[in-house]
Amino acid sequence: MVQLFDDERLDFLVADESLQIIQSPTAFSFSLDAVLLSHFAYVPIKKGSILDLCSGNGAIPLLLSRRTQAKITGVEIQDRIIDMAKRSVECNDLTNQINMIHGDLKEMQPYLGQSNFDVVTCNPPYFKTPSRTEYNQNDYLTIARHEVYCTLEDVVKACKLHVRPGGKVAMVHRPGRLVDIITTFRAYKLEPKRIQLVYPKKGKEANMLLVEGIRDGKADLTILPPLYIYQEDGTYTAEAKEIIYG
Amino acid sequence: MVQLFDDERLDFLVADESLQIIQSPTAFSFSLDAVLLSHFAYVPIKKGSILDLCSGNGAIPLLLSRRTQAKITGVEIQDRIIDMAKRSVECNDLTNQINMIHGDLKEMQPYLGQSNFDVVTCNPPYFKTPSRTEYNQNDYLTIARHEVYCTLEDVVKACKLHVRPGGKVAMVHRPGRLVDIITTFRAYKLEPKRIQLVYPKKGKEANMLLVEGIRDGKADLTILPPLYIYQEDGTYTAEAKEIIYG
Repeated sequence: MVQLFDDERLDFLVADESLQIIQSPTAFSFSLDAVLLSHFAYVPIKKGSILDLCSGNGAIPLLLSRRTQAKITGVEIQDRIIDMAKRSVECNDLTNQINMIHGDLKEMQPYLGQSNFDVVTCNPPYFKTPSRTEYNQNDYLTIARHEVYCTLEDVVKACKLHVRPGGKVAMVHRPGRLVDIITTFRAYKLEPKRIQLVYPKKGKEANMLLVEGIRDGKADLTILPPLYIYQEDGTYTAEAKEIIYG
Repeated sequence: MVQLFDDERLDFLVADESLQIIQSPTAFSFSLDAVLLSHFAYVPIKKGSILDLCSGNGAIPLLLSRRTQAKITGVEIQDRIIDMAKRSVECNDLTNQINMIHGDLKEMQPYLGQSNFDVVTCNPPYFKTPSRTEYNQNDYLTIARHEVYCTLEDVVKACKLHVRPGGKVAMVHRPGRLVDIITTFRAYKLEPKRIQLVYPKKGKEANMLLVEGIRDGKADLTILPPLYIYQEDGTYTAEAKEIIYG
């Protein structure tokens, strides 16, 4: 029995309908980006610890719970949205594995210590905020999508702080920010090791970027085969279907 | 009438057999990398100036001459190889458009000034040289492939020195060096604007990287559709054929 507020709804998160998530079109709905990151990220299988920053309604912790027995901590700054995430964790009976924390990723050291996680995942806000007047600072979706409360550098700094040496940081972002991401990762000694570019369909420019860095890793990057989402006829490719529906 | 030495041979550089190039299996033969870079690079059509660093036997200047009336300068450090390039330019009757210079890209300012070129292209040595004992410093192919005489940073620095503000720098390299390339480009204010990844075939990791930066450009990267070279049956894809055979 799950409590739903306002315009919330309870969606299935995976095709076998074994995982549910509370969504809200006005507050937060997970996107394909979270699904692809959950699939792309390395996870330890049997034990270990994973931190998910900018966790939103908890889609990534919930999806990762299908791949690992590691403990998963999610951090989200918006109380309205972390509340959805917490209820989703409860409704899936995952409170033993997933702990959602309401907080600012820039100030989590007192609660999470440092260098404590094997893996850090993050689906951060993608867009720079050009000026304070051009957006509504209190709008849930604006905060999730724009760098209102944290810049890319804040995010990468927090990843570095919380991942253990040799641990992995996986992020999904826009290709337009690749240069920013790579230079910031390297500046914080999270050496990019795996990149995958996601293309909406054949002949189009990439519209999503998956990147994994290793803390204190050696320089040596692999660029994985491209991932196409849609076929010419607008249906999912076999690959995308496999990732989305399992 | 062209003079050929040693084990040199005269190859056709394009399918219509209108362009020839002197090659030598022991000294230098152009590769697909040069062909792809010549196709990828932006060039002014009617006038302007292009500089090709690490020019080898001149494949890039020769190929670019089919796309532009701009003056093209090639710089190559190995006298044995620049000599091949010069004879190729003569044999194609391109001495009015292409000027091949024997020199070290680190020391070209007295000859080329600075900020004088609209476009700089470069197919540099790909591999770091682990130690002085592991290679033969005098071997032509080793010098062309390993950072014996110039590091990636030397190359990027020279690109920056010679390209005009707002001009373009196009490079072909290995994906494994993407992080080095991007951080070095940005450090020298050559903002990466276009990247294309080249995959040998479907399902394989990328094995070539094309990147174009703009001097003093604004951060905004486009990642072009991937380029596949071979089909499953080992023949060229239509796209690769179009680039290679025109």
